[in-house]
Amino acid sequence: MSVGTAIYLDDLHVGQTFTSGEFALDAQQIIDFARQFDPQPFHLDDAAAQNTFFKGLAASGWHTAAITMRLLTSCVPIGSGVIGAGGDIQWPRPTRPNDSLHVVCKILDIQPSSSKPDRGMVTTECLTLNQHGEVCQRMVSKLMVMRRPQ
Amino acid sequence: MSVGTAIYLDDLHVGQTFTSGEFALDAQQIIDFARQFDPQPFHLDDAAAQNTFFKGLAASGWHTAAITMRLLTSCVPIGSGVIGAGGDIQWPRPTRPNDSLHVVCKILDIQPSSSKPDRGMVTTECLTLNQHGEVCQRMVSKLMVMRRPQ
Repeated sequence: MSVGTAIYLDDLHVGQTFTSGEFALDAQQIIDFARQFDPQPFHLDDAAAQNTFFKGLAASGWHTAAITMRLLTSCVPIGSGVIGAGGDIQWPRPTRPNDSLHVVCKILDIQPSSSKPDRGMVTTECLTLNQHGEVCQRMVSKLMVMRRPQ
Repeated sequence: MSVGTAIYLDDLHVGQTFTSGEFALDAQQIIDFARQFDPQPFHLDDAAAQNTFFKGLAASGWHTAAITMRLLTSCVPIGSGVIGAGGDIQWPRPTRPNDSLHVVCKILDIQPSSSKPDRGMVTTECLTLNQHGEVCQRMVSKLMVMRRPQ
């Protein structure tokens, strides 16, 4: 599929995989996000973070989730948008300053809607990996995807 | 429990509820978050959003999640921090410009760790409600909570 082509429910199949580019994260981005949305010592200050569960500055899980969304919008070109109804999210390890993140998103299931023939629900597994190939976030979520407009 | 008192695993019980203050959201905040993390038309521009699934400007679900975290850090004063291992998140309806959000967080279950006696896993349900009392986000998540330091 060529880059830039909008895709629809009809173009998806189970097992299909999308891989994003890299997102470079630094300490200042971690701190800026935390000041706005998750102002706890282990997300704000490396020295203060040493004596916490994280033993050093770590990104808020919600920052990792937001970066994951940014990467998904750039690599999953669904014509009707990447629209999630919800899902299950886990953070097996923290995201750290100077991590470079990318996302691998795999289609697990496709269910055409029985009541609305113009759409379907697509279950995806999205892994957010750091530069060592370690999983920082695993998310299984349901996306609402439209069929190609007639 | 007086405001400002740090609480620990020992202080929590099933059924306990924490209610946050209000967070006032406006269109500019929605657009600023979306530009950074979820640059899709329905999160960036009200006119462009009219012809989409959302039929008007809507906040990214990850923005609602981030605001929820901000509210939780202000109303759940766990001494070791509000540290989530993951959970299940759903957005039954969009968050809109000029919504005022608050969070109600209820403790569903408490499991002391069998291998690490200084901590436990606490399951919570956090509802993020708008000014009409409608649920914009429901999250069931597991928090790692330390016992009171000896």
